Amino acid sequence: MTALSIPGDSLFGIDNLPYGVFSTAGTDPRVGVRVGDHVVDLAKLLGEDVFAQPTLNSFMAQGRRRWAAVRARITELVGGEIAAEAVVAVDDVTMHLPIAVADYVDFYASENHATNLGRLFRPDSEPLMPNWKYLPVGYHGRSSTVVVSGTDIVRPRGQRKAPADAAPTFGPSVRLDIEAELGFVVGVGSPMGSSITPDEFAEHCFGVVILNDWSARDIQAWEYVPLGPNLGKSFATSISPWVVPLAALEAARIDTPVQDPTPLAYLRGEEKWGLDVELEVEWNGQVVTRPPYGRMYWSPAQMLAHTTANGAAASTGDLFGSGTVSGPEQNQRGAFIELTWGGAEPVTVAGERRTFLEDGDEVAISATAPGPNGTRIGFGEVRGRILPAVMPG
Amino acid sequence: MTALSIPGDSLFGIDNLPYGVFSTAGTDPRVGVRVGDHVVDLAKLLGEDVFAQPTLNSFMAQGRRRWAAVRARITELVGGEIAAEAVVAVDDVTMHLPIAVADYVDFYASENHATNLGRLFRPDSEPLMPNWKYLPVGYHGRSSTVVVSGTDIVRPRGQRKAPADAAPTFGPSVRLDIEAELGFVVGVGSPMGSSITPDEFAEHCFGVVILNDWSARDIQAWEYVPLGPNLGKSFATSISPWVVPLAALEAARIDTPVQDPTPLAYLRGEEKWGLDVELEVEWNGQVVTRPPYGRMYWSPAQMLAHTTANGAAASTGDLFGSGTVSGPEQNQRGAFIELTWGGAEPVTVAGERRTFLEDGDEVAISATAPGPNGTRIGFGEVRGRILPAVMPG
Repeated sequence: MTALSIPGDSLFGIDNLPYGVFSTAGTDPRVGVRVGDHVVDLAKLLGEDVFAQPTLNSFMAQGRRRWAAVRARITELVGGEIAAEAVVAVDDVTMHLPIAVADYVDFYASENHATNLGRLFRPDSEPLMPNWKYLPVGYHGRSSTVVVSGTDIVRPRGQRKAPADAAPTFGPSVRLDIEAELGFVVGVGSPMGSSITPDEFAEHCFGVVILNDWSARDIQAWEYVPLGPNLGKSFATSISPWVVPLAALEAARIDTPVQDPTPLAYLRGEEKWGLDVELEVEWNGQVVTRPPYGRMYWSPAQMLAHTTANGAAASTGDLFGSGTVSGPEQNQRGAFIELTWGGAEPVTVAGERRTFLEDGDEVAISATAPGPNGTRIGFGEVRGRILPAVMPG
Repeated sequence: MTALSIPGDSLFGIDNLPYGVFSTAGTDPRVGVRVGDHVVDLAKLLGEDVFAQPTLNSFMAQGRRRWAAVRARITELVGGEIAAEAVVAVDDVTMHLPIAVADYVDFYASENHATNLGRLFRPDSEPLMPNWKYLPVGYHGRSSTVVVSGTDIVRPRGQRKAPADAAPTFGPSVRLDIEAELGFVVGVGSPMGSSITPDEFAEHCFGVVILNDWSARDIQAWEYVPLGPNLGKSFATSISPWVVPLAALEAARIDTPVQDPTPLAYLRGEEKWGLDVELEVEWNGQVVTRPPYGRMYWSPAQMLAHTTANGAAASTGDLFGSGTVSGPEQNQRGAFIELTWGGAEPVTVAGERRTFLEDGDEVAISATAPGPNGTRIGFGEVRGRILPAVMPG
């Protein structure tokens, strides 16, 4: 038996307890919970098969009462002595994609980001579309290319056409970008023909990850009318390996900014689902921006309500992204196209001039939120490195 | 033992042999092949567990050589006497969704449809966007709401705002429409970072279904800028239960219309993948339009090549729709918004005036293609009936 040492300032203290899927050399992926710098093997700690699985989906499908009961039991057990064979050092594990992704939807919920992108993509029009303050605008992305932090990102190829070009050409993207977001994981779905209200959010949402919606701006700008982004985004979306339970974010819940006009009834609720999460983006090891999630216009509860308002089914494993988190300041912008204003205002990163991502560049996005009693809740990080494009022949 | 009787003019003759998933009273869903008006239970016929499963995915993942071998073996066996317990009458089975849908992408590959929709949605602009003739425009749809023919469709609710309205309102769609399409099922995927060429299409595409991309035009028109369709489409997509193998469509392969400008190299191939498939749309029992698939500008081989051109993974169970099939004539338009020109030119359906779908309306889309030796290959049909919207409270 062993007692877990947890530094007092750990971002993975007893109030966090995020879930992930890990393996060690020669073992199969299975569910663990992070405590300090330890990973606790839940199948061994609790003796339940639902945790001896390569994704969280089966556990997530069991619902909120069960999530609460397991969290309470883990809290109780890891505060005492537990079997030594249930504990692995976080440095000794490989983390895997924690969920089998069902449908993936990405939103566009930051007013600053939507305004900046509108100015950059449509300089001759009003930056915000007329619908933007009435509904959380979103689109479906590609589920099969959601990957876990640490997965290398091969620079995508595609069609792009600068306004001055007579015709498009095909080749590696030269405007490869990130979008720093939070991702919300659906544990309990809803059947086709029904809808989830904003105040039912916590019954359905299991937890939260950091999400990097890699974006090839040149491909996106050429393809996106009229049906939205496709290949400019579909090559890869990275998420952090630890799913922070919604229950760990009680102290981070805040009001969203004032929503004016008042949202339609199906988007209104009594519960606060703004989240005071601070993101930080490192480009080749240098912090370049700190996007404040607390400024997001639409809450995740509103995003889920909107997604199902038409009767669309929700499923265990659905993932939805918030859209780029950008604040009002230049050093709060969550995408490099905003940070460098379309490439016109380069930034210096670790001594080098940068506009968009170069081969070999690495980006790590981390996040923290207030926990109880002055502690901080850590989300860990989502990290990825750019590999050169693969060209045929 | 029994010999199967197959009428000489059957659309499900020995040259078709589509696969589906069926059950009979009190039995589990499993894979069958349709022969005339019979369903042959493949697990019983061939004694293989891969067919005793509730989807085609495991079989599809086995690849093209295996698909050919199974097809040859079925052809040989059903031409002789087979065990009576392997045969069920088609009227005695319930058909199920034949595939577990991985990613679902919908294209926009008919020049007539894209032009008509451009005129209706953006009357003050060029109807075709500048990118349209350079790439098959498409977007990701919602996989979890792909349903099998016969599933009732609950009228979706959502936000809509007519140009004259000061603000949007929320309620049942009043412009509920269909889109008559073909759907292509991926059997063998491709890993992230690689791409599929147009001439590799037959190695990856298992077969073809009829697809109805139900569309709420009022919701779509308000929400779709700038990220494309979402709730106007995500409530339901219906597919026919029988997946026609690509191998059954050899006689239907034709050139696409001339593509001018010449597509970029990654969209070019030697193989013909235009398909001479005739669709027919019945609205409350009356044929209202006969869209010609042979007029589609982009081939499905080009659609799959484009989807993976950026290195996005493809997966067993991926489904992609062609987009609405519309020909140049009024009675060849595959969506009611085109057929009635935005509702301005009502049609008479079974004695009643119609613009968009009313509660209780039923739509059935069928399709046939040339087979060998003057025969016809049937796709069966995709059918759905509109139920009234469910309002809260």
